[in-house]
Amino acid sequence: MASKLANSSPVAALAGGVGGAKFATGLQETLPPGALTVIVNTGDDFEHWGLTICPDIDTVLYGLAGVNNPQTGWGRDRETWDVLAEIERLGGEAWFRLGDKDLALHLLRNQWLKAGANLTLVTDRLRRKLDVPSRVLPMCNEPVRTLVHTDEGDLPFQDYFVRRRCEPAFRGLTFVGAAKATLTPEVAELLRAAAQIIICPSNPYLSVDPILSVPGLRQLVRDSDAPVVAVSPIVGGRAVKGPVAKMMREMGHLNHLPLTIVEHYGDLLDGFVLDRQDRAEESRLTLPALTTDTIMTGLSSKQRLAAEVLQFGRSLIDG
Amino acid sequence: MASKLANSSPVAALAGGVGGAKFATGLQETLPPGALTVIVNTGDDFEHWGLTICPDIDTVLYGLAGVNNPQTGWGRDRETWDVLAEIERLGGEAWFRLGDKDLALHLLRNQWLKAGANLTLVTDRLRRKLDVPSRVLPMCNEPVRTLVHTDEGDLPFQDYFVRRRCEPAFRGLTFVGAAKATLTPEVAELLRAAAQIIICPSNPYLSVDPILSVPGLRQLVRDSDAPVVAVSPIVGGRAVKGPVAKMMREMGHLNHLPLTIVEHYGDLLDGFVLDRQDRAEESRLTLPALTTDTIMTGLSSKQRLAAEVLQFGRSLIDG
Repeated sequence: MASKLANSSPVAALAGGVGGAKFATGLQETLPPGALTVIVNTGDDFEHWGLTICPDIDTVLYGLAGVNNPQTGWGRDRETWDVLAEIERLGGEAWFRLGDKDLALHLLRNQWLKAGANLTLVTDRLRRKLDVPSRVLPMCNEPVRTLVHTDEGDLPFQDYFVRRRCEPAFRGLTFVGAAKATLTPEVAELLRAAAQIIICPSNPYLSVDPILSVPGLRQLVRDSDAPVVAVSPIVGGRAVKGPVAKMMREMGHLNHLPLTIVEHYGDLLDGFVLDRQDRAEESRLTLPALTTDTIMTGLSSKQRLAAEVLQFGRSLIDG
Repeated sequence: MASKLANSSPVAALAGGVGGAKFATGLQETLPPGALTVIVNTGDDFEHWGLTICPDIDTVLYGLAGVNNPQTGWGRDRETWDVLAEIERLGGEAWFRLGDKDLALHLLRNQWLKAGANLTLVTDRLRRKLDVPSRVLPMCNEPVRTLVHTDEGDLPFQDYFVRRRCEPAFRGLTFVGAAKATLTPEVAELLRAAAQIIICPSNPYLSVDPILSVPGLRQLVRDSDAPVVAVSPIVGGRAVKGPVAKMMREMGHLNHLPLTIVEHYGDLLDGFVLDRQDRAEESRLTLPALTTDTIMTGLSSKQRLAAEVLQFGRSLIDG
């Protein structure tokens, strides 16, 4: 752990989609502009209509830009659907819902990727176009694709998540391509310089593990002098959003889910943040814990939680 | 020339964009379903937002499908512009106007091209999606890109045509990639089987010459037993649409433009169709000519012209 955290010291957040984006938005509003960098899962990425789709990056970008759809948690606000309707009319694939505004960003990404820019550079250009003050880094530039092992066989992530609505029983994951992925200089530099590292309330298996699977990344988090704090995605034994609790049950974890998550992260963590509803679990944890209200609704609850988590992290340095 | 033309014999039309699409629509409505195949210029194709754009193919497809915008001559009817507006807002390139419905077709093309299908197969899938009874063949599968030599230097076609609105003075053309293009089996088979070959009222330099530049294609047209008839894109010494007359002036052809076009096509033609307004030019021509009203407004004028041109072609066999 480093010495006392300056107010503008770099903060690194590891995030998946909706929950990660909400918490990152709270961090951004709490920290000085530019202090936050979010490392985002790209294991959910896939090709659709010949375009590279990066669901988690876009959810984080739209959240940080304040142009997200607050109802769905993904996609753009005040969205229109003219292209999708016409693709459907032409008999094309319409199961993955890309709106018109969303598509505009995808076409810019497509143009720049085709011109040879890597995903880190493309994402940085997009966040500038969206006037996002925080940096957003893909976990790596190479394609890593999460393959979900289920009782109905192996499913590419979006097939499991969108088409099948996470219905097949979860058996495990493979992050295809992770072994050949390369830690980017931007991620490495961030993790070496970070004064705090925060694992957002994202799915540990689907959203955070792919990030940690990039060779060398987990080691950098573990070796960091900065306090590493994870925020629980579980509230009252259930997931706030997404299939994490269902997946944990299918892995045989029926109770004490916060403890299971802490054990899953293992030696990475210096502290853990859990919800008041799981207060009874705190005594089982063998690391410093902050129990608070982790449900984020409006911006003020995001900011309040972010400030508490940052203060908790600082306390781990000071203490 | 072949023996008397059966009503369902294959007819091949060589076409560029707007004028070609109009005339091809007339042919389609006049001929039995499936008798018409249109070979379309792809020299205007380019990459935009990372997508392959085929302006002439799409103008022909939309025209034949009856879903074109009759005001502009290009693009879709009842179009919306949500994606373009958002790309513009994000600071992306908005000079080439792709509407939402138009974009749906481009995304299907992008998906199929990325999956490895060639442009001939992709175009055939698209025309089936659009319920077009006629076949539409790109002149070749490889990229051929028209480079326009002007008094302001060399310009890629869309820069000359859309961005600069054909303002720089025309000096000549290069069809980059044409020498390495391959005659497709579909085009070769069509031209060998065709009972009539019609060069649509398209720009001879920008739209028809790229088609004829595909190695072996011009030879097949010349060697065909079928009558080859061109319809003049000039009416009263001016272009019905597009820059052909301006280009001809800039090449020093100030008068007798129909004759200039006939001489440009050289030994390809068995007959030529010119407008009543250019009746005085007919006496200069040394090949059979049909003088008629070539301006196409509604569907009935397209059909009337198509029927006359087909009858003229038949008369060249019988005569």
